[in-house]
Amino acid sequence: MTSRGAGPLYQRIADNLRARIQSGELAAGAKLPTEESLTKTHGVTRATVRQAVQVLVNEGLVVSERPRGHFVRRIERLIYRPQKEWRERPTHPELDQFMDEQVELGRKPSQTIAVELAAPPPDVAARLGLAEGDTVVIRKRVRYLDGTPFNTNDSYFPLELVQGSEIMHPADIGRGANQVLAELGAEQTHAVDEIEVRMPTPDEASRLEIGLGVPVAMHRVTGYTDNGRPVRVVRNVLPGDRHLIAFERTRPAKPQKGDEQ
Amino acid sequence: MTSRGAGPLYQRIADNLRARIQSGELAAGAKLPTEESLTKTHGVTRATVRQAVQVLVNEGLVVSERPRGHFVRRIERLIYRPQKEWRERPTHPELDQFMDEQVELGRKPSQTIAVELAAPPPDVAARLGLAEGDTVVIRKRVRYLDGTPFNTNDSYFPLELVQGSEIMHPADIGRGANQVLAELGAEQTHAVDEIEVRMPTPDEASRLEIGLGVPVAMHRVTGYTDNGRPVRVVRNVLPGDRHLIAFERTRPAKPQKGDEQ
Repeated sequence: MTSRGAGPLYQRIADNLRARIQSGELAAGAKLPTEESLTKTHGVTRATVRQAVQVLVNEGLVVSERPRGHFVRRIERLIYRPQKEWRERPTHPELDQFMDEQVELGRKPSQTIAVELAAPPPDVAARLGLAEGDTVVIRKRVRYLDGTPFNTNDSYFPLELVQGSEIMHPADIGRGANQVLAELGAEQTHAVDEIEVRMPTPDEASRLEIGLGVPVAMHRVTGYTDNGRPVRVVRNVLPGDRHLIAFERTRPAKPQKGDEQ
Repeated sequence: MTSRGAGPLYQRIADNLRARIQSGELAAGAKLPTEESLTKTHGVTRATVRQAVQVLVNEGLVVSERPRGHFVRRIERLIYRPQKEWRERPTHPELDQFMDEQVELGRKPSQTIAVELAAPPPDVAARLGLAEGDTVVIRKRVRYLDGTPFNTNDSYFPLELVQGSEIMHPADIGRGANQVLAELGAEQTHAVDEIEVRMPTPDEASRLEIGLGVPVAMHRVTGYTDNGRPVRVVRNVLPGDRHLIAFERTRPAKPQKGDEQ
């Protein structure tokens, strides 16, 4: 990751700064050398320095805080474990396992809940087996930690399934939406997790206060009943500088001796 | 996602183009209107048009192919299923499940393999319980589909464990590295998957031909033996425009009636 002595001048200055960030010489939160000082050190114009710093901004390593200058981004990823959704005794079913863990760590979680009726977006329609003309109930949540937006969690349910139930109320469901589904005869027993990686939309960037150069994971969960009926799709938007997604798995028992991989 | 009639002019032009991309009016691979035509349509300077298009490039929606112009990025995500690593009969153990599926789809996979001895990077050292002064064997693979680089897969093993084994040879291991570990008395029986989302390093961008505005998932797998000893760390770098990561899970049996979530 050191300067390779080739490529445009601004790239070499960027390489130099990046190496200093990655070695920890410029630690999280540290102020970058000023434009003026970089201009002198490298004997280049201010425009070249700006181009170099912009490379690091686009890579998500550096944050611009005008007029104070540029700073090394603090990246603190909290562990998010989708498999914990079904652990035995959640303390706060709707705040879910993610927030639960944060409470244990002494942070203060909060959330906003809104409920909308709308046509399903194409990915949701495909997974719930709905036509685009059908209607879904969307429970939209923004989750905060210590007042800072952390992620969004939008759950989509077929209207005909949840009509008239608590799921349509824009308030916390103490025992969890999964339990309400179970009471409606649509208990989820298995799920498929899908993770896509992309840049945030402007709307996501604004709702979640996502900086330049920070991508998101779109974590989509489709929940199925015992007989394979899809009853819920969840779309979580997780800013990459704040989340690490973790799964655990066990090797299945072998069918017979000598049949190992 | 339509123009909100507020914000800087270039943002509104970007909003307009983004909405046309998302509606499908400008489909994957389509050429964007020329700078000249956008200048006339919106009654703005060429600099403003360039700023608007750059927003979409940074979001990964648009690709610059000078001198031909700008095009809507083609995003085709292949499904990658980490859990399939341990399915019963892999056809090509080292090419693994990912490539296996591609063969079934008629694509031509290939890979390069290099073996290095090095000090473990901090995340690997922590997971393998090694000190930074220890040595690991790294099997570095780049996988290609139809000649295009698709992802990188680097496996880290403690030197003292794999010394002298096939794992140190820079060639395909027909029965798979997992089987070699098993023969060395270090069979993996469970694993932890971790997924981090970030922009690629310049090195990754160059090795994997990753365009502007395309983030990566860093998928890290730590494999453990039956008695909890970590014996392997894998780091996969997966460009976001080419991969969708999928897991499946089943709700554990309930401990007792009335104890549902």
